[in-house]
Amino acid sequence: MPNLYVALTHYPVVDKRGDIINSAVTNLDLHDISRAVKTYGAKSFYVVTRLVDQQNLVQKIILHWTSGLGASYNPARRSALELVKVKHTIADAAEDIKVIEGKYPKTVVTCARKYPASTGFKEFREVLKIGQPHLLIFGTAWGLAEAFISDADYILDPITGPTDYNHLSVRSAAGIILDRLLGTT
Amino acid sequence: MPNLYVALTHYPVVDKRGDIINSAVTNLDLHDISRAVKTYGAKSFYVVTRLVDQQNLVQKIILHWTSGLGASYNPARRSALELVKVKHTIADAAEDIKVIEGKYPKTVVTCARKYPASTGFKEFREVLKIGQPHLLIFGTAWGLAEAFISDADYILDPITGPTDYNHLSVRSAAGIILDRLLGTT
Repeated sequence: MPNLYVALTHYPVVDKRGDIINSAVTNLDLHDISRAVKTYGAKSFYVVTRLVDQQNLVQKIILHWTSGLGASYNPARRSALELVKVKHTIADAAEDIKVIEGKYPKTVVTCARKYPASTGFKEFREVLKIGQPHLLIFGTAWGLAEAFISDADYILDPITGPTDYNHLSVRSAAGIILDRLLGTT
Repeated sequence: MPNLYVALTHYPVVDKRGDIINSAVTNLDLHDISRAVKTYGAKSFYVVTRLVDQQNLVQKIILHWTSGLGASYNPARRSALELVKVKHTIADAAEDIKVIEGKYPKTVVTCARKYPASTGFKEFREVLKIGQPHLLIFGTAWGLAEAFISDADYILDPITGPTDYNHLSVRSAAGIILDRLLGTT
């Protein structure tokens, strides 16, 4: 199994004008990305928001599916949502990984734009095989804030198809990137 | 550009007990899958439901984003949702393709289970390069009904990662499959 952790962050992300915002949690992000994380064998799925009411909302949704009525109704959903951990910041997620792994993870960010120093999927697939802990971070809204992207250890190439349209949902992007890094045929 | 059409059908699909049902439309299926269809250059995205109130709901959502307030608010969302066509049955979608292409499409279905006669992604990627029209069909709920799957011209391999968990959302599965068939690196 890969030594990979996944985070979805709601701060610092940008809105359509490029201003830094706290975005709201989307219920289906939790479901879709936790199911992809479970499929591809990542260790945890950190949902990161600084807003306490949003943290409470996420906990309520998770509890419904992991110990509430949802758990018996849909055990497959339960086993995916059990991977979710709610954190205040990405730094808190990294601290949690340090407790588990004995070292901080390298951070890996994703963006719809191409950066000069970005890493290809095949190349990063090989990096993961070495077994060191990595934290793959997805941004909500219009994407991660610029300063946050440039602070990361790795920036992945954007996902591309045969068109120049680059507006996938974060749910789709997370599934596709996990598949490119960890999928088998 | 690939000669590929995509359909998301709400009948005939099965519920958790395996009974055939008409499923309800999920708003984010329309958004996520149309954006993936646009990214990977497929020609149209058919949303198929026999329920007239559900057809009306889909039309209302599309109109909001293609000619309503949503169109000016988010032009990228507009250009994706413009690819959506609402149809009563998969046969109706195939008829529409025949009008456009002058011939019926071959049908391609997806399933979380492995079939003896299933086609690999690399193999089907080559089939698409020939340029004949194909209709790639995704099922909602617990997936396409068995009889519908066995009637298709192609059954794609299931998506696999390093685990045996096979419960991706249809939104994630559609993105991943389009990437495996049409993604570039």
